[in-house]
Amino acid sequence: MTVLLWLAYKGTRYAGFQVQPNALTVCEVLQNAMEAVLGFRPDVKGCSRTDAGVHARRFALSFRYDGTVPLRRLPLALNAHLPTDVRVMQAQQVPEDFHARYAAHAKTYCYRIRNGAVDDPFDAEFTHRVPKPLDEQAMQRAAAGFVGTHDFLALCASGSSVAAHGDTVRTITRCDVTRDGEVFTITVTADGYLYNMVRILAGTILQAGLGKLDPAQVPAILQSRDRRRAGPTLPANGLCLADVQYPGLVPETDD
Amino acid sequence: MTVLLWLAYKGTRYAGFQVQPNALTVCEVLQNAMEAVLGFRPDVKGCSRTDAGVHARRFALSFRYDGTVPLRRLPLALNAHLPTDVRVMQAQQVPEDFHARYAAHAKTYCYRIRNGAVDDPFDAEFTHRVPKPLDEQAMQRAAAGFVGTHDFLALCASGSSVAAHGDTVRTITRCDVTRDGEVFTITVTADGYLYNMVRILAGTILQAGLGKLDPAQVPAILQSRDRRRAGPTLPANGLCLADVQYPGLVPETDD
Repeated sequence: MTVLLWLAYKGTRYAGFQVQPNALTVCEVLQNAMEAVLGFRPDVKGCSRTDAGVHARRFALSFRYDGTVPLRRLPLALNAHLPTDVRVMQAQQVPEDFHARYAAHAKTYCYRIRNGAVDDPFDAEFTHRVPKPLDEQAMQRAAAGFVGTHDFLALCASGSSVAAHGDTVRTITRCDVTRDGEVFTITVTADGYLYNMVRILAGTILQAGLGKLDPAQVPAILQSRDRRRAGPTLPANGLCLADVQYPGLVPETDD
Repeated sequence: MTVLLWLAYKGTRYAGFQVQPNALTVCEVLQNAMEAVLGFRPDVKGCSRTDAGVHARRFALSFRYDGTVPLRRLPLALNAHLPTDVRVMQAQQVPEDFHARYAAHAKTYCYRIRNGAVDDPFDAEFTHRVPKPLDEQAMQRAAAGFVGTHDFLALCASGSSVAAHGDTVRTITRCDVTRDGEVFTITVTADGYLYNMVRILAGTILQAGLGKLDPAQVPAILQSRDRRRAGPTLPANGLCLADVQYPGLVPETDD
């Protein structure tokens, strides 16, 4: 059968999800746990690569499973072999041909910014801090400018291979900014992302919040297809993959 | 002048606040930072000792200050010399004879319990997990039974020196249980605490939640003054000093 696993992880120690030589990755520690529990090392399909240092609240991956451990006991069994910064939250059976990356209709990311003089030691690992005062309404207006189907080349890290191939049109269905005390959260939902797109988008919204960019300029920035006109790439630690949307997939409840 | 510092810290790596030989303490790393910034090592008075592994959102300490760094710049200057799990949030001038421990009218602690099958990697460091289902109303009824002025010897770790001296009457003005999704928070405000009192109180409330203790038994447990009748001492990682109340002290705002 094909199984979908939902993971949550702190990305701080990892070079992203995807296995790479000479770097610790989430996929590698997961496959190590799978090998210990199942006796074999499955080939896994992640919903996304995620950059080094980026976190995930709901990361999805699929794999072929013919083991004997009942599905509902798989999370606890795997968690016993995983480091504490990676947890398997749930396992569910999916259609045979399900692929965690290709089946995803949309993914939602959150970027957290603390606007204050001092880091909060309880969330500094997950939050980028900006000491200068931010204009919340300017940030909201800038965010709204990204919603829609656009060529997002201006928000793509230069040198990315996808940029060279010209496939840089994506659809953002949600992009907004909320505030809870000192913490601003930028939430983005799109059908796909270019390399570093959310961190550059967040950097552009931040420039608007700092008064360095007029929110009304966002459409012109996108039309320019010029990376230099968008804001800086914000650090990875503020970014978190919040959810992945699979149409028609009913979340299973535990027991 | 006398200065009050407000700290926030993750207690995971520390053997509590109070300096001790052969163990890393929050006070020691703070005094190291003070020595680097001020050129001398002040004697500091903490509001509480806090146990090894216990966290603090608002920990208060006072010290004599005759340095040249302006007070409003002290947090940033100290934070530059502190590890990232300890932050100075604020510094304010207080009356000459102010003592962070003796001036405190009350302290508030929170104990967090996740009721679920899997740890959340983002807050597992601050949350004790219990997999078996908890009865929220039974926990609330047990908590209410602790409010008032009582002899709390039954909630004091055996072997404590204060227990031997008989000074075990305290007043709890608030003790309640709230729930946010899987996370239960026990909040206690009292004029003082015996050794391990909050962790034993939380363990007693947890026993009620598990159906192992009738909430109506709380008054009888207190009257017994018998540690063995109360619940277990829960782990330190779920406990956090949330606030310290100083009557008449007006919090200063930054800039």
